[in-house]
Amino acid sequence: MKKFTAYKDVSQAEDLVALAKELKQHPFQHQEFGKNKTLGLVFLNPSLRTRLSTQKAAFNLGMNVMVLNLDKDSWSLELEDGTVMNQNSQEHIKDAAAVISQYCDIVGIRTFPDLKDREADYSEQLLQKFIKYAQVPIVSLESATRHPLQSLADLLTIEEHKAKAKPKVVLSWAPHPKALPQAVANSFIEWIKESDVELVVCNPEGMDLAPEFIKDVTVLHNQEEALKEADFVYAKNWSSYENYGEILAGHENWRITADKMQLTNKAKFMHCLPVRRNVVVTDEVLDSEQSLIYQQAENRTYAAQAVLLKLLGHE
Amino acid sequence: MKKFTAYKDVSQAEDLVALAKELKQHPFQHQEFGKNKTLGLVFLNPSLRTRLSTQKAAFNLGMNVMVLNLDKDSWSLELEDGTVMNQNSQEHIKDAAAVISQYCDIVGIRTFPDLKDREADYSEQLLQKFIKYAQVPIVSLESATRHPLQSLADLLTIEEHKAKAKPKVVLSWAPHPKALPQAVANSFIEWIKESDVELVVCNPEGMDLAPEFIKDVTVLHNQEEALKEADFVYAKNWSSYENYGEILAGHENWRITADKMQLTNKAKFMHCLPVRRNVVVTDEVLDSEQSLIYQQAENRTYAAQAVLLKLLGHE
Amino acid sequence: MKKFTAYKDVSQAEDLVALAKELKQHPFQHQEFGKNKTLGLVFLNPSLRTRLSTQKAAFNLGMNVMVLNLDKDSWSLELEDGTVMNQNSQEHIKDAAAVISQYCDIVGIRTFPDLKDREADYSEQLLQKFIKYAQVPIVSLESATRHPLQSLADLLTIEEHKAKAKPKVVLSWAPHPKALPQAVANSFIEWIKESDVELVVCNPEGMDLAPEFIKDVTVLHNQEEALKEADFVYAKNWSSYENYGEILAGHENWRITADKMQLTNKAKFMHCLPVRRNVVVTDEVLDSEQSLIYQQAENRTYAAQAVLLKLLGHE
Repeated sequence: MKKFTAYKDVSQAEDLVALAKELKQHPFQHQEFGKNKTLGLVFLNPSLRTRLSTQKAAFNLGMNVMVLNLDKDSWSLELEDGTVMNQNSQEHIKDAAAVISQYCDIVGIRTFPDLKDREADYSEQLLQKFIKYAQVPIVSLESATRHPLQSLADLLTIEEHKAKAKPKVVLSWAPHPKALPQAVANSFIEWIKESDVELVVCNPEGMDLAPEFIKDVTVLHNQEEALKEADFVYAKNWSSYENYGEILAGHENWRITADKMQLTNKAKFMHCLPVRRNVVVTDEVLDSEQSLIYQQAENRTYAAQAVLLKLLGHE
Repeated sequence: MKKFTAYKDVSQAEDLVALAKELKQHPFQHQEFGKNKTLGLVFLNPSLRTRLSTQKAAFNLGMNVMVLNLDKDSWSLELEDGTVMNQNSQEHIKDAAAVISQYCDIVGIRTFPDLKDREADYSEQLLQKFIKYAQVPIVSLESATRHPLQSLADLLTIEEHKAKAKPKVVLSWAPHPKALPQAVANSFIEWIKESDVELVVCNPEGMDLAPEFIKDVTVLHNQEEALKEADFVYAKNWSSYENYGEILAGHENWRITADKMQLTNKAKFMHCLPVRRNVVVTDEVLDSEQSLIYQQAENRTYAAQAVLLKLLGHE
Repeated sequence: MKKFTAYKDVSQAEDLVALAKELKQHPFQHQEFGKNKTLGLVFLNPSLRTRLSTQKAAFNLGMNVMVLNLDKDSWSLELEDGTVMNQNSQEHIKDAAAVISQYCDIVGIRTFPDLKDREADYSEQLLQKFIKYAQVPIVSLESATRHPLQSLADLLTIEEHKAKAKPKVVLSWAPHPKALPQAVANSFIEWIKESDVELVVCNPEGMDLAPEFIKDVTVLHNQEEALKEADFVYAKNWSSYENYGEILAGHENWRITADKMQLTNKAKFMHCLPVRRNVVVTDEVLDSEQSLIYQQAENRTYAAQAVLLKLLGHE
């Protein structure tokens, strides 16, 4: 594995899930891989789970960690090539990436989309330029269109909690007052659709995700129909892909409630967090026995640890 | 010891002081307790001494440390239960606490009072909710009403510098241009009043601290009378408890000066820092041989180290 | 070595360069010096290279590291002695320095000039006061007038890439839209002029650096003349020393271009970064085979590591 930014970077996703599961049992057994190695974590956006779980994963492997809040601690970045940099940007991304990778054995980077220019966001320009100019393996800590560390943790969580060989997994759009990226949803689909599950995505009309992600995936516009006999319900808001970045108002009835969970096969409930309680999903569901939200959070450590270990050369 | 937020969390304060004293002599002797353990430090407010001394304490024990400036690096918190979170707060404290504790063996948290709603501040709502939902031991890095790591360091400092079995210790209110919490004063009283000292608190009329802290404590409104024959003078400003959060103006003459120190029994001078020089106390006193301000700061490391070691299971 | 803030703090610069070169080959060989030692990095200004390379250097030596963004994480500092601190500053530098050094074995500090009061900047008041009150060795992470870790890395880079015994090294002023410190240029001259090179500084008239730095140095006001037969070209902007802090406009033709590099002896190109591309120097030069900008950045680690190792007591 040379980098970890999308499903296609991984040769065998099941092997990575299995490795994460093993690391959860024996977290400190591979410190010979991390000794004298340094992980750099670069944030251009806020982070709680990713920030802490990835550090913890590195500590478990015996690595050193440096955190750089690039938006606050350092210089503003220029993304365009050939620009005469006489305005506000102080350092070109090609120089920042090349320099940061002088000091790190692996670099993680978080960069959100601006949700204004779809083509720019979906070309993943910042992440791709960073990869191009860095000289070490790059781990996405969530990029404009994907959040693969979250998806890997989600796969591990489903693997741990499934009660049948081929569970039904429903990803449901949910309401939210702010414009959010499509990254978590895109990424979850990209990873889970290759697993041995029955995947159903449901969202209001006009809120379909990008064709590259939902190709060959069952997408329903009727939430109740989708939830029937579900074994796992994953709720997540995203802003519109079609009317790029727009918020869909007036769909509060898409909120996941205990009544809706009654339609399912006593489904487990999942969300990547942070979650706006009683907007996306009710307290009753989040705080129920069926909720796996903290298990997902816990599994972030072992997902990150498996990825770091692979990038450090573990077979 | 399950947590460290107030005097009552500790079974034998003298034992903790003795442990801190021992760690100061042999700081690196217990690294088997900290190996592969992670301390998370969560700040909702500025910090210098606490931030650095607690990290240093953890390093001395061989622990890993992660720092989260929750107010800047992450998401804004919701404190109320049952809220429909469709406004500004992005993550509920119950989720933040549960998640952060997935990645840490011990979590330290700093949360200042807003000094507007006395009942809310004195119920320690943020700290208590964090404790309720966290799944690991919590250390207060200063909360709305207490600063116990400071108090433990202060006890160690008095223990090291007392010249008689039962010294007279005077805690004196001092002037300040901004509204400050009562936490350091409350906490100092809570800890020192159980020690073998003669404790006197002095403050202007109307500036008495909360009854729960000054019950059974000698409180004088005449500073000169209080200072007589003192062996230790601890100066600290606090805003009003009665007229909650108000600044008391026009009492510049409560500033500690060399002349006032002449009233004492060559008393040692103490302050928790940061201190506004020549407002709270004059340079002459702060920079004198009698001043223990840097010794107090140094002892913060060993106070924190003793607390962390206890929480890691040291008997 | 007691501190590292200027050339004069070092007894033998060549020995330090040689140590840095050796550490680059064997970075992890001296961890017995760093074990249980803590480096504190204090930033009052932005930093990328210095922040990461100095952490990496400390990790290579087995040290623990704590980073304090003093401008954001903590309290605002008072620099003047004797002030009645009833305004905005919350902590005196003498207290901050004394306290921070309680928790660290070595402290690094970054403090930029304000470029308004030349005398204040050139007296290095903040750095000097910090040193005066700290009780441990201090490393400058760039101060008002010098950036010695950069200069040491630059010396190492020149040593590695020189093709003749006494190369011609040209430091050229270059255009920039903002007022920048003179620190990198001052410091480069201070270090390189003692080496076995032919040093030429060139800048527009009125942009001469401080006499203490350019005394006995060849300073030309004609860039083309200066560049002739150069083996190394180091480009850097600085604001005016004479009209202190002023930007020199209308000198875009001082930008380093491929054409200008033709005047040289196939010179290597150097810049400390961050660089405003196509303002200071063209992409063509920066991205050419002759460019050493990333090698300079890489060498920051080993320069810092040599300095830390010396301060830890290595002979």
